[in-house]
Amino acid sequence: MAELPTLAPLTLDRIRALVEAAPGPDADAARTAREREEQLTKPAGALGRLESLTEWLAAWQGRHPPTIENAHAVVFAGNHGVAARGVSAFPAEVTRQMVANFAAGGAAINQLTAAVGASLRVIELDLDWPTADFTAAPAMGPEECVAALATGHEAVPRAADILLVGEMGIANTTAAAAISHALFGGAASDWCGPGTGLDDEGVARKTVVVEQAVAFHGDALVDPMETLRRLGGREIAAMAGAILGARYRNCPVILDGFVACAAAAVLHKIDDAALDHCIAGHVSAEPGHRGLLYAIGKTPLLSLGMRLGEASGAAVALGVVKSAIAAHTGMATFAEAGVSEGED
Amino acid sequence: MAELPTLAPLTLDRIRALVEAAPGPDADAARTAREREEQLTKPAGALGRLESLTEWLAAWQGRHPPTIENAHAVVFAGNHGVAARGVSAFPAEVTRQMVANFAAGGAAINQLTAAVGASLRVIELDLDWPTADFTAAPAMGPEECVAALATGHEAVPRAADILLVGEMGIANTTAAAAISHALFGGAASDWCGPGTGLDDEGVARKTVVVEQAVAFHGDALVDPMETLRRLGGREIAAMAGAILGARYRNCPVILDGFVACAAAAVLHKIDDAALDHCIAGHVSAEPGHRGLLYAIGKTPLLSLGMRLGEASGAAVALGVVKSAIAAHTGMATFAEAGVSEGED
Repeated sequence: MAELPTLAPLTLDRIRALVEAAPGPDADAARTAREREEQLTKPAGALGRLESLTEWLAAWQGRHPPTIENAHAVVFAGNHGVAARGVSAFPAEVTRQMVANFAAGGAAINQLTAAVGASLRVIELDLDWPTADFTAAPAMGPEECVAALATGHEAVPRAADILLVGEMGIANTTAAAAISHALFGGAASDWCGPGTGLDDEGVARKTVVVEQAVAFHGDALVDPMETLRRLGGREIAAMAGAILGARYRNCPVILDGFVACAAAAVLHKIDDAALDHCIAGHVSAEPGHRGLLYAIGKTPLLSLGMRLGEASGAAVALGVVKSAIAAHTGMATFAEAGVSEGED
Repeated sequence: MAELPTLAPLTLDRIRALVEAAPGPDADAARTAREREEQLTKPAGALGRLESLTEWLAAWQGRHPPTIENAHAVVFAGNHGVAARGVSAFPAEVTRQMVANFAAGGAAINQLTAAVGASLRVIELDLDWPTADFTAAPAMGPEECVAALATGHEAVPRAADILLVGEMGIANTTAAAAISHALFGGAASDWCGPGTGLDDEGVARKTVVVEQAVAFHGDALVDPMETLRRLGGREIAAMAGAILGARYRNCPVILDGFVACAAAAVLHKIDDAALDHCIAGHVSAEPGHRGLLYAIGKTPLLSLGMRLGEASGAAVALGVVKSAIAAHTGMATFAEAGVSEGED
């Protein structure tokens, strides 16, 4: 298992340098996976996306056969000053209540990780100290942002062979919309949806908040790291850190929904190969997610109309990835099974 | 567990009558599932399609909570006279070779069922006696067709709580295309694709074969049961029988790909409620499958570019269904978890 690089000096510049210096895929392992797929007792390509998943896993785990014996979900929780602007259907105290629900085993992600055999860790980030309302100030100071990034970076277990990255944070689809708008342009309304259940009036209010935020921070948003610091939240920075840490740990990542992908998008904007070790587990029902996936170049594995966060979509997707590995690893070859091959 | 109705007298008319008299859903169980979903600690509707899956399972298992403890995959194998017309990239002996591969545990479906905890049974139907070439004669005689239907009907284990239905049979996408063309019209080319890997010339040959078959049988194809008998194969009739038998066993069904859905379409054409206990596990890469799903009113759960048959897509989909049940059954309610509810 690869060692994590030191984060010292703990600065946004150091994080940016780590994104740019991140290790690449193992081309030999990928080729071995591809060659084995061609010999298995099925028409060439007949397992579709499952075949590309095994190649992707081999490439980023750096070994063949790829294995999933230590799937791990990490859910970061944070609170947002912008929640005071009426941009969520739920009150801000729900973040902490849901963290308690995670701890008690009662949330969706507890069941979904158990169903697919993944471990789960929930990391709360200073819930009693919401970030600043980013329509009037940077959400985080530089030290605060880099500390959250570091928390995520160090949250990838050494033994993890695939990582699911998710979040909980009332008002964080507003932060994700602001980040997406800053990184990729378009209209603020392209990125704003109902989140946990806003009505049309609420979505309109959220859209104004996102417009105000991007206007307030102006040219500072040219830098993706500054965008993260000014418009993000601690759980969003931590997800970016975890995605980066996983890369250095040879640990492929399944991204979850809109907010997780906004965190990933910051890395993608720094280096468009920074997410090559990640797949999008699903496309959610949150309207901005589809466009965000397009912007970061990801085709979602599932489309089930989910919009919960918590790594829930990533956990359902993990089942598909495990199926892919099972087929790749266990199937007989044409030669082993004595099955005639088809014409090409 | 419901008792299977007797098939006697063993005639196509008797099967047709059973389709028309099939039991309906349990509205109480479905309502209980829906009411529980509304109380779980998530925004209303946030688990998307997972929520409708639990309601569907409750309705057709006839109980709440729905459970999956005995998932069962049944794969029927048959040989087709039309294979002699050069409509497959693989030789006909591959059907038997693959049945041996299933028995030895080396095929994709062995791994995929094991990965999701489903049992697997493979039923071969007179592989040494291919059906007649349906461009020049009915594929099966009436007794032969009804015997295959009965085999499927009785193949649903009493304890099964969800059934995956799949097939193996060289040239059977040609039979499925002919059935689809007969049942739903359009052009023969709408229903003909590469199957296991035909090139363009092969697909053109297959299209001509399908056109010839539908022209040869003419008005006899007005009757869906006659369409099955004349253009189907034994494994296709058996799948139709299994789908029907599952309905009488309170056993929801996950349909697999193009060929399984052609079997299902025969039942749908007899009674458009006949597939209400079925979901489409996936949409395959075989071009006709999307249109066929539309014709039978099914939205596929997955779209992974698979095109293998063997119940492989249904098996991957089962993982998603199990995730849905896990969330529904294990999650805490708002009241239990002390989580504040959102505004509607």
